[in-house]
Amino acid sequence: MINLDLTNLEKIDPAHGISKEELSSKESLIPAYLEKIKNRDQGFYTVIDEEAPIAKIEEYAMKVRGKYSHIVVLGIGGSSLGTICLQQSLLHLYQNELKTTSAPRLHVLDNIDPVLLKELEDVIDYSKTLFIVVTKSGTTPEILAQYHYFRKQIEKHSLEPKEHLAFVTDPEKGTLRDIANIENIPAFEIPENIGGRFSVLTAVGLLPAKLIGLDIRALIEGAKEMRDNFLQTSNNLAFQIAAIQHTLGEKGKTMNVMMPYAQKLIRFADWYRQLLAESIGKKFNDAGEEVFVGLTPINALGVTDQHSQSQLYNEGPNDKLLIFLENKDANIDLEIPELYEGTTFKKLLDIELKATADSLTKNDRPNFKIQVESVTEESIGQLFMLMEGATAFLGEFYGINAFDQPGVELSKELTRKALL
Amino acid sequence: MINLDLTNLEKIDPAHGISKEELSSKESLIPAYLEKIKNRDQGFYTVIDEEAPIAKIEEYAMKVRGKYSHIVVLGIGGSSLGTICLQQSLLHLYQNELKTTSAPRLHVLDNIDPVLLKELEDVIDYSKTLFIVVTKSGTTPEILAQYHYFRKQIEKHSLEPKEHLAFVTDPEKGTLRDIANIENIPAFEIPENIGGRFSVLTAVGLLPAKLIGLDIRALIEGAKEMRDNFLQTSNNLAFQIAAIQHTLGEKGKTMNVMMPYAQKLIRFADWYRQLLAESIGKKFNDAGEEVFVGLTPINALGVTDQHSQSQLYNEGPNDKLLIFLENKDANIDLEIPELYEGTTFKKLLDIELKATADSLTKNDRPNFKIQVESVTEESIGQLFMLMEGATAFLGEFYGINAFDQPGVELSKELTRKALL
Repeated sequence: MINLDLTNLEKIDPAHGISKEELSSKESLIPAYLEKIKNRDQGFYTVIDEEAPIAKIEEYAMKVRGKYSHIVVLGIGGSSLGTICLQQSLLHLYQNELKTTSAPRLHVLDNIDPVLLKELEDVIDYSKTLFIVVTKSGTTPEILAQYHYFRKQIEKHSLEPKEHLAFVTDPEKGTLRDIANIENIPAFEIPENIGGRFSVLTAVGLLPAKLIGLDIRALIEGAKEMRDNFLQTSNNLAFQIAAIQHTLGEKGKTMNVMMPYAQKLIRFADWYRQLLAESIGKKFNDAGEEVFVGLTPINALGVTDQHSQSQLYNEGPNDKLLIFLENKDANIDLEIPELYEGTTFKKLLDIELKATADSLTKNDRPNFKIQVESVTEESIGQLFMLMEGATAFLGEFYGINAFDQPGVELSKELTRKALL
Repeated sequence: MINLDLTNLEKIDPAHGISKEELSSKESLIPAYLEKIKNRDQGFYTVIDEEAPIAKIEEYAMKVRGKYSHIVVLGIGGSSLGTICLQQSLLHLYQNELKTTSAPRLHVLDNIDPVLLKELEDVIDYSKTLFIVVTKSGTTPEILAQYHYFRKQIEKHSLEPKEHLAFVTDPEKGTLRDIANIENIPAFEIPENIGGRFSVLTAVGLLPAKLIGLDIRALIEGAKEMRDNFLQTSNNLAFQIAAIQHTLGEKGKTMNVMMPYAQKLIRFADWYRQLLAESIGKKFNDAGEEVFVGLTPINALGVTDQHSQSQLYNEGPNDKLLIFLENKDANIDLEIPELYEGTTFKKLLDIELKATADSLTKNDRPNFKIQVESVTEESIGQLFMLMEGATAFLGEFYGINAFDQPGVELSKELTRKALL
């Protein structure tokens, strides 16, 4: 199970840190906050109990087994970031360059730059490619544009659309659902009460995950373990994280740097970046007052970004909270010959994490660690639920709705008008 | 040539923006700032005039032509970010998955996670791999650890080290230089007066660039064009950017989001992220006073991050300056069938950039555009020099030394002690 190491937060000047007492004094808020979250009618922590969607994905995966050499996900934001994280965390880091695997190669097409589309076409074989079109509303213009483009290409190659397309969308509404119904295209559901950025544990993330060979039941199992913790009124990890973020936000730490010390976890920080930004960056609170709250997420990677960001983190304005992700067991380790006889790369990684955290602590820069035993489906499932729960609590600390995104309407409207 | 579109900065509430008058009133500072920069004895804008290092790289590239299927750069921070940017900007986006090219595949190993090293070994063929070891001081522990590991592997494969290694390091000092001299290993120079984060236009970036087939003379040509502009006392683009960053920093915009609207430019934002963070995040000013200044760089990608960050950028705290990178000509364009008949993906991309910028402007969020005609060696060379120049000017605005990094010494010291 995931552990939080909060010791460095206590070691620094209280103006920039948070003591154990300050933190535990907030625990009495948990029941009321859980009640408020429940009343917002969000499915992110209950959808994982449903067997039918998982069984449907498994059945489909069994049916198409061996059929595709390439899986292309057409999705953006909440429809892509979870899948990219799953791919990076749980597959070989150079999976798509491996010559020794027959597993399908996954590409997530999360942009509309024509160069990206065209160059993707250079590496796929249409006759062996499945396009998974992911849009909750079924109306995302970028994704519909991609869909129409690739569908036309499928047809140009004299292939049957329903053999090369699968949809993940609203159970009833939207363009994609209509097309699926008429043309008998395989279609999976995003429940209505789950927002895009909370949807990784629905078909949005699970369908591509299953098709590239991941253990989606272990992923769900991990999420369930953490969900149980999320509903506890004490020793609640998600609540502790939110309390730290909020308390330090009030102390001027308006940026949250998530910095994994594990190459495979960097895209988890990308996934979380959307979750924190869109959920907490809000103009109005629940009472309708203008508040302009928000914490700005930043992702960094240890040790890599010690060589690009540590100078700023240590000596710049004291305006950041650092959240380290520590991976206890790397599974693989390698000896470093000559230089540091008897040391391994994992030991060096651990030493550098400690040195980085201790240096920040010495400079009164708040930081804490989220520790996972190893990077597996189960721990990734835990991490997703941990940060979703933390974000839900954080919304209650700020008294805002963590589940909407009114601030993007204007640019969508301007785009629509320009397209007329 | 690169153009700045600053119109949106003038359209918003002056408390959050900057007028043309305010900006041009600062131009009188240029001569004094250029003099100060000159006195800091930095080579970043003069090294591009040297012919010998380029000729040496070309000669070496000619000699090893066809010899390697894989180039692995062992480098971190300033020794990796420029190369990653060149690879992403100027090669095919899926270069390493292409079956139709005989050009060597490039991997940049900018971390010490053992999983990364081990999995890289699954895709390279030692007998056809060149390891380029890049460390200016020749003492970076992460890179020396990698070097010793891969060198031992080379020897285990009964291969000749000097046929599979090349060094980029200090012209005279350091472990690597000594080894190169003794063993006759090809070695290239990083001039003493160029810091890591300003070194992309030395052998650090140029050697790998040449080996993967890029036109390094065009890169240098672009940099020279921009350097001439950097030395001008009016219409100086680098100065204008620095003046905007500093003025808006004083107005509370402590974060600078660089958001390219071109898939190929996202790693340019990564490269710039180090440049801004390490150069400007400083505890002491030139006078030795504690100032704790710094602007926090954030990278984002259009349109992708409209779906993950726009909510925060539009409705969260008004604490950011957005710097868009616009690519005028995508070279490739594709029609969008059905949905928006007559529209192309590039047009949609442009429409969304405009909608995003206009929405931010309406919400009084400062933003401006850096416009390139197309993504080529020449324009990337211009961009490197533009932001290096802007960063040098920005240091003078803050009265700090933009070229050192004293804040990382403590964690380096703690690492060294732990390794004893």
